[in-house]
Parts: sequence; C-alpha cells; structure tokens
Amino acid sequence: MTSTAVEPGALVIVLVEPQIGENIGAVARAMLNFGVTELRLVRPKQAWPNPRAQAMASGADAVLEAARLFDTTEAAVADLHRLYATTARRRDYLKPVATPRHAAAEMRGFVTGGDRVGILFGGERAGLLNEDVVLAHTLITVPTNREFFSLNLGQAALLVLYEYGMSAEDIPRGERFEMGGTRPATRAELYGLFDQLEAELDEAGFFDNIRTKRESIVQNIRNSFQRGALLEQDVRTLRGVIKAIAGKRVPGSRRKKPPTA
Amino acid sequence: MTSTAVEPGALVIVLVEPQIGENIGAVARAMLNFGVTELRLVRPKQAWPNPRAQAMASGADAVLEAARLFDTTEAAVADLHRLYATTARRRDYLKPVATPRHAAAEMRGFVTGGDRVGILFGGERAGLLNEDVVLAHTLITVPTNREFFSLNLGQAALLVLYEYGMSAEDIPRGERFEMGGTRPATRAELYGLFDQLEAELDEAGFFDNIRTKRESIVQNIRNSFQRGALLEQDVRTLRGVIKAIAGKRVPGSRRKKPPTA
Repeated sequence: MTSTAVEPGALVIVLVEPQIGENIGAVARAMLNFGVTELRLVRPKQAWPNPRAQAMASGADAVLEAARLFDTTEAAVADLHRLYATTARRRDYLKPVATPRHAAAEMRGFVTGGDRVGILFGGERAGLLNEDVVLAHTLITVPTNREFFSLNLGQAALLVLYEYGMSAEDIPRGERFEMGGTRPATRAELYGLFDQLEAELDEAGFFDNIRTKRESIVQNIRNSFQRGALLEQDVRTLRGVIKAIAGKRVPGSRRKKPPTA
Repeated sequence: MTSTAVEPGALVIVLVEPQIGENIGAVARAMLNFGVTELRLVRPKQAWPNPRAQAMASGADAVLEAARLFDTTEAAVADLHRLYATTARRRDYLKPVATPRHAAAEMRGFVTGGDRVGILFGGERAGLLNEDVVLAHTLITVPTNREFFSLNLGQAALLVLYEYGMSAEDIPRGERFEMGGTRPATRAELYGLFDQLEAELDEAGFFDNIRTKRESIVQNIRNSFQRGALLEQDVRTLRGVIKAIAGKRVPGSRRKKPPTA
C-alpha cells in the first residue's frame, strides 16, 4: 500500500517576459517580505541569472536562486490549480476582475486548502498577452485614481503580495498592534495625577483670586488630559514633572492675593 | 464681518533627508496613483529639483514641481493637525503603533473632518531620527514576514498610500468590481444550455448502450458546468459550440449500437 503524497498548497509568482533585472529583484524582495518564495520566469528579456536583479533583491537572493525558467506561460503554470492574472484597467475580457484584497482572501483560502495558486504578471511595456490572460480564472486590478494609473511591475507585485501577506491569520490587520511596552492609563491613575496636580495648584495659590471659577477650571484641566489618551507611562512622567516644578518653589513663596480681590 | 476661511483637509507626505532621487520620484508616483498631491522635503541629500526623481515619477511631475523644501521637520509639519511617522519594527517608543490599514482609516476620517494630516518617512539608510518620531501621534509599521523585513522608501510609501487610497468611500475594497460587460448566467439560461446539449447527445446516440446510466451522466455533466460559475456570455458561446459540432454530423450518421448490447 502506498500513501498518496499530498503536496502542500503554495502561492507561485509567474513573471512573463520581464524586461528589467531590477524589477525582478524588487518582486523577489516583495515576495519574501510577505512569506512567498516560489518564483517562475517565462522568457526573461535579459540573461539569467541577472546581477541587477540580485542587487535589488536586498537579501532575498534565495528566492532568485530558486527561481525556475520556462519557455512558455503554459508550461510555467501547468501544475497550478488556480491562476490569477494582473492587468491595468480594461474591460475587454469576459472574466471577473477582483481587487488585490478580494483576490488575496480567495487565494489564501485556496492555498490553505492545499491548492497551488499562481499569479501572472506581464512585462513592463506591454503587460500580459491575451493568450496568457485567458489562462487565468480571475483578473486582479489595483483600484487607483481614475485620472492617473502608473504602477510598474515591482509596485504592482508589492501591492498584491502585501494583501496576500495581510490575509494570513496571524497578521494584525486593521488594528493598532503594539503599545511600546506600556498601556493606556487607567482612570485610577488619572485621578491620582489630578489629585496631585490640583493639590499643588491649591498650595501655590493658583485659585486664590478666582475661587468661584475653581470648579470649571479643574474640569477644563482634567478634560485636556483626556484628549490625548494618556498612557500609563505618560501619567508617571507628568507626575514627576509636577513634583519637580513644585519642588523648586521656595517654601513660603505662596502667591499673594492681589489687592483688588 | 469677515467670514472665517476654513482650509479643507489634506494628506501631506513629508520625506525627511531622502537620499536617492529615484525614490522621491517613486513616492510622487505612488501619491498620484492614490489621489495625494502635497509633498514636502526636509533637507534632501541631492540638489533639488532632481532630474532622476522626475524620470522615475512617470507623469507625476506636477507633484514634484509643487513639492516644498524645508530646513527642519518641525517647520515642515508646523501647520498640520495630526502627524504619523513610519518606522520598521521597533519597540522603544511609548506611542501606539498602527498597521497602514488602521492608520489609513483614521487619517481618512481626520482629512474628511477638515484636518491637515501628515506622514513622516525617514531617509533610506537611517530612517527617522528620534527627535522627528516624537513629533508624531502614532507610528505606522507594515506587518511583514518576521524573518525578513526589507522595504525601501518608495515601497513603504506605496503601501501606506495604497491603504489611504483604499480607504476612500468610492473605491471598491474587498469585492470583485467588474465583470467585463457581462454577468453571471441565470439558472434559466443554464437550463437552456442543458436541454440543447442533452438533446444533441440523445440525437448522436451517446446514451444508446448506457441507457441506465443516462440520468447520472446527465447530472455529472450539469454539475461540471456549475463549478465554473458560467457567465451569460459563456452560455451563448457554449451553445454556439454545440450547434456547430452537431451541424458537422452528416445526417443519418447516428452512431450504431455496439453488437454486444
């Protein structure tokens, strides 16, 4: 009895007739930033391996070294279960067109389910040929400013790969995901700050000639500290500041009531 | 009585000590793709205007021409109400760190409300200085592969600007947003296709020696057409194909029952 080997799912980037080595390097770099490593090249215009691709890859050399070369797009995608093709805005194909975000969520689902999923990117000048586009199930187009669309190969790949990376389960998406080791201050910590501050102001005679306004001024001061969403560390810093300023005051230098009061 | 002039909200990109002209051009291009036009440069390392920036801007020259130069970050951000700073992963600031997606939604809200919002990007080698970072309310960090983080200035700006563009109300986000002028086929159109196909198969004698299996084969054929989510145009194309193939059959050439039946 032989066990059936199940290949794990993967995302495969296929560049068709890429012209500029730097862009291939930029794609490899974008790939590795978002955890994608399988690169295929169909008829690159410059000799391969390409030193200018390596210079631009900035440490993603392993992706370039493992890249496979193919003579035809058909051969490059033969083992893939799902295929997407990236295009600029056009409407002459009878295929669904997805945003990178929609396509990324779909691709992530397929890859998690064990499918091998490919994305075709065309060359810098002409993009993909019709005969390549028809191989794809779905087109991907980046929604941009309607009056200005200008993304090169490396930029288009970066956006699609970024969305693929963002579709991973363990990646924070729409959140603030780090607080630098601290946390928002609790209400109790804020009250501690207010008590200290107001005691020092009373001690300094701040309210002496405006006694009737004390309550509204205290509310304004307290309110001003709410706007900034103070962190616990901020509260400690401010309390230190108040203490230091109060400590500089010469004992007995309490401000006198103005004579008009 | 004078009316109070209210400045409209805007997003402003501030590059602090950018080193490479091409990257400034790439930022301008990324900006215009996503409808952002206000660029400020603090002490660019190369002379300004920079012909290499213009070459890379690919039509976003107007953004470069309107760019303003400043001697200090403080002067460059003086008129802004909210400030974000982009950083690679680090944890030594007591500031909230947001993903580009979270920050974009927040910034869009502020800009819509009339605020002038800035994003600081540091130079290629060193990033932002601490004294610049402390000016910001919130840091923006792109969540990437934990083992490989390598985004240059142009790439980081592209991702943040892309998310800002995607946060606009009239931009399709997680959807398929175009069907190339056609639409998914209706169930009625599919039944029309099935009827034609099955009639032609009957006429061609396809089921003659497998009469008992006709029902399950028909179900399999019908099922196979559901998987592809056929478009209305697909149904018309397939009906034409069936008609053409059936039309080639010489009248009376109906396949004979095999002798074993």
